[in-house]
Amino acid sequence: MLNSEEKLRALTAQAEEIIKSFLPAEEGEAADLIRAMNYSITAGGKRLRPVMMEEAYRMFGGSGEEIGPFMAAMEMIHTHSLVHDDLPAMDNDLYRRGKKTTHAQFGEAAAILAGDGLLNLGYETALLAFDLTGDAQRVIRALKILARSVGWDGMLGGQSVDVALDGQEKDAETLDYIYRKKTGALITASLLIGAVLGGADDAQLDKVRQAGAKIGMAFQIRDDILDITGDEAELGKPVNSDSKNQKETYASLYGLEKSDEMVTALTAQAKVLLKETGADCSFLCWLFDKLTSRSS
Amino acid sequence: MLNSEEKLRALTAQAEEIIKSFLPAEEGEAADLIRAMNYSITAGGKRLRPVMMEEAYRMFGGSGEEIGPFMAAMEMIHTHSLVHDDLPAMDNDLYRRGKKTTHAQFGEAAAILAGDGLLNLGYETALLAFDLTGDAQRVIRALKILARSVGWDGMLGGQSVDVALDGQEKDAETLDYIYRKKTGALITASLLIGAVLGGADDAQLDKVRQAGAKIGMAFQIRDDILDITGDEAELGKPVNSDSKNQKETYASLYGLEKSDEMVTALTAQAKVLLKETGADCSFLCWLFDKLTSRSS
Repeated sequence: MLNSEEKLRALTAQAEEIIKSFLPAEEGEAADLIRAMNYSITAGGKRLRPVMMEEAYRMFGGSGEEIGPFMAAMEMIHTHSLVHDDLPAMDNDLYRRGKKTTHAQFGEAAAILAGDGLLNLGYETALLAFDLTGDAQRVIRALKILARSVGWDGMLGGQSVDVALDGQEKDAETLDYIYRKKTGALITASLLIGAVLGGADDAQLDKVRQAGAKIGMAFQIRDDILDITGDEAELGKPVNSDSKNQKETYASLYGLEKSDEMVTALTAQAKVLLKETGADCSFLCWLFDKLTSRSS
Repeated sequence: MLNSEEKLRALTAQAEEIIKSFLPAEEGEAADLIRAMNYSITAGGKRLRPVMMEEAYRMFGGSGEEIGPFMAAMEMIHTHSLVHDDLPAMDNDLYRRGKKTTHAQFGEAAAILAGDGLLNLGYETALLAFDLTGDAQRVIRALKILARSVGWDGMLGGQSVDVALDGQEKDAETLDYIYRKKTGALITASLLIGAVLGGADDAQLDKVRQAGAKIGMAFQIRDDILDITGDEAELGKPVNSDSKNQKETYASLYGLEKSDEMVTALTAQAKVLLKETGADCSFLCWLFDKLTSRSS
């Protein structure tokens, strides 16, 4: 029996393999585009979303293969958002996780197209789940959750408000909206898609949705705190880059101590909600604690 | 009985209504993002792809509603490509169809996100077809055709090669690849999706695929020719913008006369292929002729 740390390492390695298995070969006329897409998605990262998705899937009884395409799709779409976020017209970041960002490496036009390519590849990949399931209705439901979570009422909506108000003070309500959508939407969708494909019922899905919202918020506030207190080398990006860009964050709005309390409270609430599903959430609860108490 | 011109007007107006019916209301926190998305897609255009899709659907016996979401999705994704194409890092165009391009109107960051939003909304919209059909398998097949036609092996692949070789001479093979993918992929997919949802069999789909490739190519070469000979006011964009950007086109590679002959031959081949399906293609054949002999 693996302990939780070992299980996390195993799940992360498995997610890594699954993601790679759905990447196109860097050949043919579009090899340069594919190279930029693959560079972006293999540049590291915790694979947090696919790991959480797979665990939610197993937790509600899933034992098939149709989760794989969705795990890869989620990471592709998450990477799409990072590639476009880093563009000169957006955050203008040259490094991420200690590596050159896509536009720094391949140029701006190539990065725009690589981001587009990853978003589209996410859907192309998720659609492969139909070939691996006996329950097309669950896959349809999961696809709808995915599309909603990415679009104007999800991640892109949050991102658009964040970008529009760049450098301006934001009130608590606006900041809450940005966090819920920009970070929370894909994390919630990861858990929800796993739960839907695994066979959770509507009451359980409602708990999972709420838990996802709480842990997504906790995760983003922890990110804010780390941006102020973290160690540059450990994070692989300049510390304090948010405040350098004059962004208003929870940490700057509420202060470090209050922000820390919020993270603790949100994490506890997320765990309670998961437990209320009645499924065995011991690993996810451990992971929530780990992620929101991390120092890098 | 409508004549073909009247029928085209009716189908275009109908496509316009269908597209509008799937656009999000410009309200809520993401109103600015939605406004930029809606601005882009309501800025005009022939609605050629949805019109061709619907006609292919009817031609093979389709009589349901599930074609509507796909018609709107195709136009959203086509518009996504125009919005990103026009960006400063790409073609840097300030006007399209006589109106300011999205980035000229809303800024670069907003245009990147609006393009992303339209691509995603395309999938979110197409997924609604599952609620309107009794045959989920056809919708799954249509979704796969859509995703393939947009991605690295379709439109985005062609676009990436076009951008990478901007200002450089291209050989015939490369130019052929760019045209087949950048323009041809979505036009072919429009016909194919209509045919799949309408109930065409595999042999018919194969003919439709080939016809789409021919007419997509003819359409793009006609565009090249018009770029040299067209009237600026009529086109709504600067004439000769391609040669100004030192792009190599079929018209510049083969000359106007030979290009014109190619358009005529490709159009004739496309019509023969459609006729070989055995379905009544009189309107689509008329439309092919009209589109490839147009002067604007």
